[in-house]
Amino acid sequence: MTIALIIILSLLGIGIAFYYMKKVISIPIDLGLSQEEGERLKTIHGAIAEGAMAFLKQEYKYLAVFMIGFAVVIAVLIDDTHTPDVREGVYTAIAFLFGAIISILSGYIGMKVATAGNARTTVSARNNIADAFVAAMNSGAVMGFALVGLATLGLMVVYLLMKALLPDVANNVTMEVIAGFGLGGSSIALFARVGGGIFTKAADVGADLVGKVEKGIPEDDPRNPAVIADNVGDNVGDVAGMGADLFGSCAESTCAALVISAIAFSADLNAMLYPIMISAVGIPVSLVTKMLVRVHTEEQVAPALKKLLIISSVLMAVVIYFFTMWMIPGEFVINGEAYTSMGVYWCFLSGLVAGLAVGLLTEYYTSDMYKPVQELAKSCETGAATNIIFGLALGYKSTVLPYLAIAASIFISWELAGMYGIAIASLGMLGTLAIALTIDAYGPVADNAGGIAEMVGLDKEVRRRTDILDSAGNTTAAIGKGFAIGAAILTSLALFAAFLTHSENLLRDINGEDYNLIASITLLDPVVFTSLFVGAVLPFLFTAMTMKSVGAAAFDMIEEVRRQFREIPGIMEGQGRPQYGLCVAISTKAALREMIAPGVLIMGTPLVVGFLFGVPAVAGILAGSLVAGGVLAIASSNSGGAWDNAKKYIEAGNLGGKGSEEHKAAVVGDTVGDPLKDTSGPSLNILIKLSAILSLVFAPFFVNYGGILL
Amino acid sequence: MTIALIIILSLLGIGIAFYYMKKVISIPIDLGLSQEEGERLKTIHGAIAEGAMAFLKQEYKYLAVFMIGFAVVIAVLIDDTHTPDVREGVYTAIAFLFGAIISILSGYIGMKVATAGNARTTVSARNNIADAFVAAMNSGAVMGFALVGLATLGLMVVYLLMKALLPDVANNVTMEVIAGFGLGGSSIALFARVGGGIFTKAADVGADLVGKVEKGIPEDDPRNPAVIADNVGDNVGDVAGMGADLFGSCAESTCAALVISAIAFSADLNAMLYPIMISAVGIPVSLVTKMLVRVHTEEQVAPALKKLLIISSVLMAVVIYFFTMWMIPGEFVINGEAYTSMGVYWCFLSGLVAGLAVGLLTEYYTSDMYKPVQELAKSCETGAATNIIFGLALGYKSTVLPYLAIAASIFISWELAGMYGIAIASLGMLGTLAIALTIDAYGPVADNAGGIAEMVGLDKEVRRRTDILDSAGNTTAAIGKGFAIGAAILTSLALFAAFLTHSENLLRDINGEDYNLIASITLLDPVVFTSLFVGAVLPFLFTAMTMKSVGAAAFDMIEEVRRQFREIPGIMEGQGRPQYGLCVAISTKAALREMIAPGVLIMGTPLVVGFLFGVPAVAGILAGSLVAGGVLAIASSNSGGAWDNAKKYIEAGNLGGKGSEEHKAAVVGDTVGDPLKDTSGPSLNILIKLSAILSLVFAPFFVNYGGILL
Repeated sequence: MTIALIIILSLLGIGIAFYYMKKVISIPIDLGLSQEEGERLKTIHGAIAEGAMAFLKQEYKYLAVFMIGFAVVIAVLIDDTHTPDVREGVYTAIAFLFGAIISILSGYIGMKVATAGNARTTVSARNNIADAFVAAMNSGAVMGFALVGLATLGLMVVYLLMKALLPDVANNVTMEVIAGFGLGGSSIALFARVGGGIFTKAADVGADLVGKVEKGIPEDDPRNPAVIADNVGDNVGDVAGMGADLFGSCAESTCAALVISAIAFSADLNAMLYPIMISAVGIPVSLVTKMLVRVHTEEQVAPALKKLLIISSVLMAVVIYFFTMWMIPGEFVINGEAYTSMGVYWCFLSGLVAGLAVGLLTEYYTSDMYKPVQELAKSCETGAATNIIFGLALGYKSTVLPYLAIAASIFISWELAGMYGIAIASLGMLGTLAIALTIDAYGPVADNAGGIAEMVGLDKEVRRRTDILDSAGNTTAAIGKGFAIGAAILTSLALFAAFLTHSENLLRDINGEDYNLIASITLLDPVVFTSLFVGAVLPFLFTAMTMKSVGAAAFDMIEEVRRQFREIPGIMEGQGRPQYGLCVAISTKAALREMIAPGVLIMGTPLVVGFLFGVPAVAGILAGSLVAGGVLAIASSNSGGAWDNAKKYIEAGNLGGKGSEEHKAAVVGDTVGDPLKDTSGPSLNILIKLSAILSLVFAPFFVNYGGILL
Repeated sequence: MTIALIIILSLLGIGIAFYYMKKVISIPIDLGLSQEEGERLKTIHGAIAEGAMAFLKQEYKYLAVFMIGFAVVIAVLIDDTHTPDVREGVYTAIAFLFGAIISILSGYIGMKVATAGNARTTVSARNNIADAFVAAMNSGAVMGFALVGLATLGLMVVYLLMKALLPDVANNVTMEVIAGFGLGGSSIALFARVGGGIFTKAADVGADLVGKVEKGIPEDDPRNPAVIADNVGDNVGDVAGMGADLFGSCAESTCAALVISAIAFSADLNAMLYPIMISAVGIPVSLVTKMLVRVHTEEQVAPALKKLLIISSVLMAVVIYFFTMWMIPGEFVINGEAYTSMGVYWCFLSGLVAGLAVGLLTEYYTSDMYKPVQELAKSCETGAATNIIFGLALGYKSTVLPYLAIAASIFISWELAGMYGIAIASLGMLGTLAIALTIDAYGPVADNAGGIAEMVGLDKEVRRRTDILDSAGNTTAAIGKGFAIGAAILTSLALFAAFLTHSENLLRDINGEDYNLIASITLLDPVVFTSLFVGAVLPFLFTAMTMKSVGAAAFDMIEEVRRQFREIPGIMEGQGRPQYGLCVAISTKAALREMIAPGVLIMGTPLVVGFLFGVPAVAGILAGSLVAGGVLAIASSNSGGAWDNAKKYIEAGNLGGKGSEEHKAAVVGDTVGDPLKDTSGPSLNILIKLSAILSLVFAPFFVNYGGILL
C-alpha cells in the first residue's frame, strides 16, 4: 500500500511534468511574429538549444568514463563485514550507476524544456504578462515535477530491486547499498555544479568585458560572439546545476534517513519508507499550490513567487502531520534512545521553517528593497574599494542569522529524534522541492526570454515585460540559493551521522558489541582535532581553485571574442555573422578541463584520509569542512547577490545611475561577485555533501582497510 | 635555583631594554641638521609622539574602567569547588589586574621608544645605512626585550605572590588563579589590537583618499592634516597592538602549560617552571643573535632580518635541549598518560619549526619576489575586479600549507606529550619572541623615519635609505603576522585543552572521580555540534564588524580632512598650518567607540553560552571559532599583504608603473586589503585566544552556575 502510493505519486509527478511540457511546446515558437522576426528568433533559439545540448553531450562523455571507472572502484573496494557471502560493493555500484543516470536524466529534461520554453516565453510576452508568466512557470514546473518524481521513483525502484537481488540480507545492509544511489546523484551534481558554474561565468565575463566594456555594445546584442554562450550558460549553470544539486540533496537525505532508521524500523515498512513519502507527498502539494497562484498584472509577479513558497510550506506542514501520525509509530527506539512520532513531526517542521527562514534572510541581505543592499550601493560613492569592503562585510555578517536558524533546527531535531531527526529536518527543508525548483528554473527561462527579445529586436515593450519576470526571478533565485545551502548543510550533517552510525556497527562486528566508536570521536582526540582543523581549510582551497578556474576560462573566452571582433569582417555593422558555436565550444572545453582538479580534491580527500588515518580522521575532516564550508558558501553567495543588486539599484537611476562613477564602482563589485555567487558558493554545497555521502558509502573500506598510518 | 635563574634572566631582559633605550636616546635628535631643519623635525617628531601618547592616555582611561569592572566580575563569579574556604575569584582578579598592568606597561615602553627612535633613525640615515639600521633595530629591541622580560618576571612574581597568599592550597589551584594573569594580558590585547587596528586604518585611508587621490599631494606630505595621525597609527597599531597580542600569547601559553601540568609536576618545581623558563631563555639567545648580525651595506638589510630569525631559532633549538633534559623528568605521567622528556623537547621543536614554516610561507605568498604576488600584479591588467578575485583566491589558497604545518605540529605534540605538548609547542613557536618582536617593532620605526624625512624635507638620499629599511621591514612584518596567527592558534588550542581538563576536574569534585567530561564532548553530541556550528560563524561576524568599523572611522576622518583643506586658508600652499591634533583626536575617538561592540562579542559570547548551555557548548564554540577563525585570519592577512605588495611591485616600474591603469586597479586591491590585513585579520588572533582563556578562567563559574537551559 505504501509502496504503491509512493509509486503512484512519483508517476503523478512525471505525468505532471509531461503535461506541462506539452503545454509549453504547444505554443507556436513564432506566435504572432512577422516572417523575418520568426526566422531570426528560430535561428537564435536554435543556437541556444544546440549550444546547451552540445555542452551536455560533451559533459556526458566525460561522465560516462568517470561513472564506469568509479563504479568499478566501488565494486572492488567495498566489502562489508556484515555480509561475508555478499559482495556489497557490486550492488552499491549498481545503485550508484542508477542514481547517476536518473540525475543526468533530470538535468537533461530540465535543460530540454528550459531551452524550449525561453523563446515561447518571449513570444507570449508580446500578448501580455500573464501569458509570459505562465509559459516561463510551466517550463520551470517540468523540471521541478520531473525531478522530484524521478527521485522518489528511483529510490523506490532501487529499494525494490535490492530487495529482489538480496532477499536474505538485513534491511540495514540493503539501505547501505541504496546509499550508492545518493552517491551517484551527488557525483553528477559535482560536475553539473562546478562545470556549469565555470561555463556560465566564463561566458558571462567574456561577453561583458569585450562586448560591453571594450566595444560598447549593449547586453544580449547579437553582434557579440559570446552572447549565445552567455545564454547557454544560464541554462547550464542555473537549470542543470541547481537541479542536480537539489536532486542530490533529496536523494542523499533520504538515504541518510534510511540508513539510520533501517534497524529500528526493520519490521515496519511504513515507518521505513516515510522519508521517501515526504518527498512524494510534496508532488501533489506543489501541484495544488501552483494551481492556486495566478498572475494577472505586472505588480503580481514578484509576490506570486513568494506566495508559492509560503503556501506550499503551509500545505506541507498540514499534510505531513497526518502522514507522520499514520506512518511513524507513536513511540519507537533508535540506538537505544526512545522517540515519538510527534517528535518526528517537529523535526520535519523545524527543517521546513529553517529553510523558509534561510530563504527569506537571503532575500533580506541581497534584495535592493532592503537596507543592506542600499547601504552597499551608497558605499559606491567612495569608489570600488569601499564597495568591495562593504560587500565582503555584508556577506560575512549575513551568515549569522541563517546559521542560527539552521543551528536551532539541528538542535531541536537532534534532541527530539537524534540523528534520524536531522535527516527528517533536511527532508522537511526539501519538502517543497517541486515548487522550489519550478521557481528556480523559471528564472533562467525568463532571463533567456529577455535575451532573445533583445537579439531578435522585438518591441521594447516585450523586453520590459520579460525584465519584470526576470527581476522577480532574481530575488527568488537568491532565496533558492540560500535554501540549497541550508539543505546541503542539514543533508551533510545527516550523512555524517549515518556515516558514524554505520562505521560503529561495522566496527562492532570486529571488536565486539561494546565497542563505542562515537564516544572516541571527541574534540580532545588528537586525530579528530587535527583533521577538524585540516577539514576547515578545504572549502577555502576549493573556493580558490574554482575562482581561479573561472578566471582561466574567462581568459580563453576573452581572447576568442576579441579575435572574432578583429577577424570577422563587418561584425560590428551586423553584416558578418559571429561564430557563436566557437564560443560555446570554448566555454565547454574550459569548464570540463577546469572541473577536474576541484573534483579530485572533493572526492580524493576523504578517500585518502580514510585510507591513511581511518574513520575518526574522516569524521574530523567532514565536520571541519561542513562548519567552515557552510559559512563560506553563505557569505560568497550573499556578497555576490548583494553586489549584483547594488549595481541594478544604481542602474535603476539611484545614486547617479548608469554611467556614473558610482556605477563603475558597482560594476567592479558585480564582476567580483559573479564567480563567488554562481560558481564557488554553490559548488561548496557539493563539497560538503559529496564528501559526506562518499564517506558513508566507503565506510566498510575505511573500517576494513583504512587507518594504515595509525 | 630555577626561580632565581628565571628572575635573573627576566631582569637581564629588562636591563637590555634599558641599555638599548639609552643608546637610542643618546643620538641627538637634530644630529647634523641645520637650525631650520632641526626645528621642523622637532615639531613633527613631537606631534607624532604627542599624538601616540594622547591616544594611549585616552585608551587607558577606558581600560581602567573596564579592568576594574571586569576584576569585580571575576571576583564575584568565580568560586572554585576545590577550595571551599578560599574565594578563588579574588585572587584570580588580582592576577588579572597584574597581567593587565604589565601588558599596558610593555605597550607603553614600546610606544615611547618607537616614537623616540623614529626621528633618530631619520637623522642617522643622513650618515649611512648602517647607523640608521642600528637606530631602528635598537628601538625595536627595547620593545622586544622589555616585553619578554616583563612577561617572565610578571609570571614569576604572580606565582610567588600566590604561593605566599595561598600557602595551603594545591598547586593546580594556584595555577588556575595564575591563569588570570594571562586573561589580563589578553584583555588589554583585545583593545590594543582592535582599537589600534581601527585607529591606524582610519588615519591611513583618510590621509590617502583625500590627500593623495582628491588633492593629488604625495604620501607623507606635511600639508595633509591626517599625516601625523597616519604616522601615529603605525605606532599604535603595529607596535602597541602587535606587542600586546604577542605578550598575550606568551602569557597564555605559559598559563595553559602550568594549568595542565600542575598536578603531574606538583612536587617538582623544576618541571613545573619549565614553561616560564623557555621564554626566559629566549632573552639571552636573542641578545646573542642580535649581536651576531650586522649590516654594512644596503643589500645586507633584508637578509639580515631573516638571518636574525633563523639564527635565533637554531640557537634556541640547541639551548632548550639541555634545559629540557635538566628540568623535565625523563619519564612522567599526566592524566594517566606516560610521556618522556625527549618527547617534550620534540614538542618544543615542532612548534619552533612550524612557526618558522608559517612565517616563511607567509613571505612566499605576500612578497613580490615570488610568483603569487607577481601573478596578482599581472591580473591588474584586466582591471580592479580581476585583481580582487585573484587576491581573494590567493589568500584562500595560502591558508593550506600553514594550516598543514600547524596541524602537523599539533598532531606530533599531542601524540608525544598530550595537551601539555600543545602548550609547549606554542611556547616553542614563541621561543624567539624577543628577537621576533624586535624585528616587528623595527618596521614601524623605519616607516615613521621615512615619513619624517619627507615631512621635514630632507635630502632625497635620506628617504631612499629609510625606504630600504622600510621595505625590508614590510617583508618581515608579513612574517611576523603569520607567526602571530600561528602562535595564537596553538595557544588557543592549549588553552582549550586546559579549559576542558580544568572543567573535568571540577566536575569530578561534584559527580565523583569516574565522571568523564571529555568523553562526552563528541562530534555527535547535539550541544557540541550545534555550538561548533555557531562558533564557526563568530570569526565572520567579528570580521564584518571590524571591517565596517574601519569604514565608519575612515568616514569621520575623510570629513575632517576635507573640512581642513576647505577652511584653513593657505593650507595647500604650505602657509596655513593643518590642525594635526584634531585628526589624531578623531581617530582616537572613533577607535575607542568602534572597539566596544567587537569587544563585547568576544568576551560576551563564551560567558553567555556557558551560563545558558554549560561547558560542552563552550567547548563547541571555542573549537568552531578556532578552526574557522584561524583560516580566516591567515586568508585576510595574506590577501591584504599580497595586494599591498602587488601595488608596490607595479609602482617599482613593472606592468606600466605608477599612474597606469594597472596601478589604479592595484590601488583598489590595496585599499580593500588594508582593513583585512591590519585590522580584521590580526584581531582574529585575539578572538580565538581571548575566548579560550576567558573560558579557562570562568570554568568554575560554568561548572557551578552554568547550563541553566539544559
